[in-house]
Amino acid sequence: MDDHEVAVCRLSHRPGRDDRMTTHVGLTARALGADRVVFPDNATGPAETVEDITGRFGGPFDVELNASPKRLVREWPGTVAHLTMYGLPVQDVEADLRAAHAEEPLLVVVGGEKVPFEVYEHADHNVAVTNQPHSEIAGLAVVLDRLFEGRELDREWTDADRVVVPKATGKEVVEPDDGE
Amino acid sequence: MDDHEVAVCRLSHRPGRDDRMTTHVGLTARALGADRVVFPDNATGPAETVEDITGRFGGPFDVELNASPKRLVREWPGTVAHLTMYGLPVQDVEADLRAAHAEEPLLVVVGGEKVPFEVYEHADHNVAVTNQPHSEIAGLAVVLDRLFEGRELDREWTDADRVVVPKATGKEVVEPDDGE
Repeated sequence: MDDHEVAVCRLSHRPGRDDRMTTHVGLTARALGADRVVFPDNATGPAETVEDITGRFGGPFDVELNASPKRLVREWPGTVAHLTMYGLPVQDVEADLRAAHAEEPLLVVVGGEKVPFEVYEHADHNVAVTNQPHSEIAGLAVVLDRLFEGRELDREWTDADRVVVPKATGKEVVEPDDGE
Repeated sequence: MDDHEVAVCRLSHRPGRDDRMTTHVGLTARALGADRVVFPDNATGPAETVEDITGRFGGPFDVELNASPKRLVREWPGTVAHLTMYGLPVQDVEADLRAAHAEEPLLVVVGGEKVPFEVYEHADHNVAVTNQPHSEIAGLAVVLDRLFEGRELDREWTDADRVVVPKATGKEVVEPDDGE
């Protein structure tokens, strides 16, 4: 969405059990301004779902399967922010994240069931959206909304098959205006 | 957290299939400043999980099973905000939500698979966190963070068995200071 990429990486995935959570991580990344989501390579179902949504509701947004998300974290050519309830408060870190993203690509790492200690060490920022246990999807949403300071909510989409028209009551879905 | 209650209501639940999503709705409501979550009465597993987390990490936070969440919506003595990708942009509605919550209790309704049209009609606000399909958990997180303007991140908890200490790297969990 901006000059430098924001990618979201989901570290681990258990097929079946994690399908909806991983899918929601990907859809949240797409809807809230990230440029790309990276899933472990066993998350083929969630990857297909996110690609299908991008095909229907527009992009650009990339979905990537990666055999070693941990290597992606190690070798990322920019800033790495790891979301964890053990980290520093997002309200104290968000300005640093914005400053870093103004200069270089940002990787937002969303944990799975067991996050190895090396991820905490490789991260430039371990970020907590409260130090309470809740949801990696909720944490990702708050971090992206604060990173982009709400600009992501006004993002325009290209190559959509359908567009939802905001309404006070009810549902309206139209074909995109060709003039756009 | 404030003078007037904020409750979050999950409209429908499919045991098994929706357990993690419903649990995450409840944990997100708790962590991000709501006072109470209401689940359909078949969501006993998620209710137990949220109560267990409240017992360990503190409250106050109430979990309630309700035989008719739709009736709760109809009879709510305050403002009802229904989260839906078909609604009006959260950035346009949030000031109205804050003003309403300053005066009376606020019910934030999170849909399930099929939301009946009466919920759209009974809602004072149908609110969209983008008009893109993503995650009710992500939508709830953004709405609560904007409703409370970040104050929820500094909330203090009572009667916790354990407290996570924010750290730049690693994990630290302590027993709460009895002096608190």
